[in-house]
Amino acid sequence: MTRDKITRSFQLHYKIKMLLKISNSSCCPTCFLQLVLPPVSTVMAGLLKRALRLRTALRCLCDYNMLSRSTATLSPVDFHSPFLTCSSEQVLASTRKLHAGADGSKVSPSAAPERLPFCRVTEEDLAFFRKILAGRTIVDPDLVEPSNVDWLKSVRGSSEVLLRPQTTEEVSQILSYCNSRNLAVNPQGGNTGLVGGSVPVYDEIILSTSLMNKILNFDSISGVLTCQAGCVLENLSFYLEERDYIMPLDLGAKGSCQIGGNVATNAGGLRLLRYGSLHGTVLGLELVLADGQVLDCLSTLRKDNTGYDLKQLFIGSEGTLGVITAVSILCPRKPKSVNVVFLGCETFEQLLKTFQLCKSMLGEILSAFEFLDSECMRLLNTHLKLPNPISDCPFYIVIETSGSDPTHDAQKLHNFLEEAMTSSLVSDGTVATEEAKIKALWSLRERVTEALTHDGFTYKYDISLPVERIYQLVTDMRKHLGNRAKSVVGYGHVGDGNLHLNVTSPSKDPALLAAIEPFSMDWASSTRTRLYQTT
Amino acid sequence: MTRDKITRSFQLHYKIKMLLKISNSSCCPTCFLQLVLPPVSTVMAGLLKRALRLRTALRCLCDYNMLSRSTATLSPVDFHSPFLTCSSEQVLASTRKLHAGADGSKVSPSAAPERLPFCRVTEEDLAFFRKILAGRTIVDPDLVEPSNVDWLKSVRGSSEVLLRPQTTEEVSQILSYCNSRNLAVNPQGGNTGLVGGSVPVYDEIILSTSLMNKILNFDSISGVLTCQAGCVLENLSFYLEERDYIMPLDLGAKGSCQIGGNVATNAGGLRLLRYGSLHGTVLGLELVLADGQVLDCLSTLRKDNTGYDLKQLFIGSEGTLGVITAVSILCPRKPKSVNVVFLGCETFEQLLKTFQLCKSMLGEILSAFEFLDSECMRLLNTHLKLPNPISDCPFYIVIETSGSDPTHDAQKLHNFLEEAMTSSLVSDGTVATEEAKIKALWSLRERVTEALTHDGFTYKYDISLPVERIYQLVTDMRKHLGNRAKSVVGYGHVGDGNLHLNVTSPSKDPALLAAIEPFSMDWASSTRTRLYQTT
Repeated sequence: MTRDKITRSFQLHYKIKMLLKISNSSCCPTCFLQLVLPPVSTVMAGLLKRALRLRTALRCLCDYNMLSRSTATLSPVDFHSPFLTCSSEQVLASTRKLHAGADGSKVSPSAAPERLPFCRVTEEDLAFFRKILAGRTIVDPDLVEPSNVDWLKSVRGSSEVLLRPQTTEEVSQILSYCNSRNLAVNPQGGNTGLVGGSVPVYDEIILSTSLMNKILNFDSISGVLTCQAGCVLENLSFYLEERDYIMPLDLGAKGSCQIGGNVATNAGGLRLLRYGSLHGTVLGLELVLADGQVLDCLSTLRKDNTGYDLKQLFIGSEGTLGVITAVSILCPRKPKSVNVVFLGCETFEQLLKTFQLCKSMLGEILSAFEFLDSECMRLLNTHLKLPNPISDCPFYIVIETSGSDPTHDAQKLHNFLEEAMTSSLVSDGTVATEEAKIKALWSLRERVTEALTHDGFTYKYDISLPVERIYQLVTDMRKHLGNRAKSVVGYGHVGDGNLHLNVTSPSKDPALLAAIEPFSMDWASSTRTRLYQTT
Repeated sequence: MTRDKITRSFQLHYKIKMLLKISNSSCCPTCFLQLVLPPVSTVMAGLLKRALRLRTALRCLCDYNMLSRSTATLSPVDFHSPFLTCSSEQVLASTRKLHAGADGSKVSPSAAPERLPFCRVTEEDLAFFRKILAGRTIVDPDLVEPSNVDWLKSVRGSSEVLLRPQTTEEVSQILSYCNSRNLAVNPQGGNTGLVGGSVPVYDEIILSTSLMNKILNFDSISGVLTCQAGCVLENLSFYLEERDYIMPLDLGAKGSCQIGGNVATNAGGLRLLRYGSLHGTVLGLELVLADGQVLDCLSTLRKDNTGYDLKQLFIGSEGTLGVITAVSILCPRKPKSVNVVFLGCETFEQLLKTFQLCKSMLGEILSAFEFLDSECMRLLNTHLKLPNPISDCPFYIVIETSGSDPTHDAQKLHNFLEEAMTSSLVSDGTVATEEAKIKALWSLRERVTEALTHDGFTYKYDISLPVERIYQLVTDMRKHLGNRAKSVVGYGHVGDGNLHLNVTSPSKDPALLAAIEPFSMDWASSTRTRLYQTT
């Protein structure tokens, strides 16, 4: 390999990383909506190529464990597998068509990616499935339908078979069979994903984990919960709360999303600021590889240095490496006191200074620091009739504290607010300690997404950036688009450096999209480049 | 692959996992000493086979990134590479010899593992190294010596060349050259490891990261530190403390261990209970693969879902996959108040109940929960003349709180102690708030290792187990060994389920070792099996 080639490869690698950066595809916590737009697919085609490499890689590994020796035909959970045969441009074009088909129109066959040469499901196949999954092999189109369409109803598959296994052994049998028969499989959790990743593109068999909803163990000393992948996040929360614990993650989709899907998408959420990412809290995973072999990484130890931490690769791999069948996760104690504050700031700089002050004065009890801009508030007022609880400001902050002593927490909060007010970092604010008001204040942050859906067609982006730069993209985008957009709004998780940039227009608008898209990517890419150069 | 083969492979896989389980080889935090005994090598031979597989796997991946296409000759950081040609029994025998050679005697060539067919360093090679590392290519045997011997002086290599690169580019050049020349390389950080992993077995070139000690960036808003791999942990701590932050990990070896080595061994440490493992706090890594190609995973984002989280594989991989050259890590705020309590308990069950109470009442300010048994206290009294600050008890606990408000913390601690005393969970105790007394109390836990070295030859084990079972192994071992052992002691991190089991004898005693070894492994293995069966 020549030096030039290496240089080029670095550039390519870098470019891909940059693209990936702005198409962060994990479940979005409070807004419950995320980007459904072309860039993710452009990127995903690359990601899948990588996935195939890694799958080969994993096979090497598994060979060692003598767990896997045959070839894998597992279709990734999302709709990029057929894109493998396309160039990036084709992918971009075809996804736009897919996206354009959201109103129910058929995907244009000329634009759609080619179907890969997987076999079609036969009567013999169905007979096999019925033998192992009696009464849980669904072929009634009306019953399969909800699994063919994503939550946003923006993409639609044409699967004719929905399988609902209850055990790891059944998942293993299904994948082993499909592998030997060259049948494509689409694993599916709660189907709450917003990037089209949870539904088939063509006729892939849908493997739903919904009936894998057993809690396997809870250790009340260590706080480690072990459960099947299909457990709904909120059910786990209820189970834990009775035992004085909570889940280390919380999402807007908690009522339907499943823990397996949370792990597969490396979901962040409202509690990331406090309890960290799933890479830290997930202690073990049980996985079924594409050919049906089971990989047991279901450790429940807080520290486990026995060899490579293979399970980490599956966190955020979106089902491309295997199906997660069980999860063990470290759960924090349930806080005895929760407070929520809603504040207003004049500038984003003041908001960041408030964040600093907050980290310093609230310290260990700070559990969320979220923001929304005045445009979000306008949409909340206009479309949802939610009144602004404080005076009008360019920026609003939602701060949550969770602690073990109500008196101490209240006092810390009081001290912080006094300091924030006297130093003029915040111009107005209100505090909630009782549950109803806490809920009301949270809804101002959580319902922005809903308000956006009433504003028109929404182009959504979920972007991780260094926190001090996150709002600049909104300002620059607003200036760049001028009156071509109806609304340009920004909100998100300040604590995690995670921005939700949303642009609305009265209807789908290819010209507007063309104005947003290379601009946002270039912006994120150049910001990161600049940051590297200054370090 | 037949069903039987799969079953067998599962059994094998399981067995290896069990073996690995009890030879957890990461840097031990407070005791600074860890197992240096044969089992680790038995296991390591297996680990390395896995490493080679994974290296191949990684190469597949890197091919995608076009970063690596040639074969790799990087020798793993530890002394198992030559064991590849041996059976487990040979390994066991040879390591015993290696270990037996700790008193300065030469390793018996008949017992030592065979040297793999790497080339010898020639004058041309040295000329090349001198060209790129002028003044930093060390060949003076006296100067190379400290890098040939491990901290415990239990294993010794015979390297003739020590290279001290300062930049990633230099590391890349070295590895690329050595790869093309088929020269074995032994990366080395602070050389504080205690399992012989940091020194060469034969004449491997030592690549020291000691001069790669630059802090690259610190973002005071996000708390993300980016630095070269050779930064000494304590220096990073000093740097951060001036900026009102701390490192998320703290080890006994902090004065010499390097952050690159901490990450490579997935070091736990005193703060794991509070801030979690490096899998959560390390945000990015820069790595040089065996053939010199650089893998840039140096993200500084809290949430980064752009493709597979490849850096995770390198955390705890002990240098077998590549050399870590830079690290970005999320740092917590410096606590404004720290308290330490030293308590006595009558039974281990009470100790566990105290842990539960502690988690519940101290909640978010609890930062350490460590224990030692009365045998440890006896050794501290006898060998180090450290007096017991409280009355004699079978078990002692060290609890640390770190918070943002001294008054609140003191009050929480007071409430907890009152409850623990009135409910008779603890029988005696003392509290420290001023630094000198905090240090004195901590030393009772931190100096156990030192006391052990005065008690005789020590067989050391570092075992992760479910917390409610951790002390049972000590009791069972004591019973099992009877008067064959001088002392059998247990101490460690209750919060992390991490036990330090130590057995001393007046001198090296193969019969004693034979009594300890299959017993401890079988015990850990069967405990885990039982746990699985009950879930």
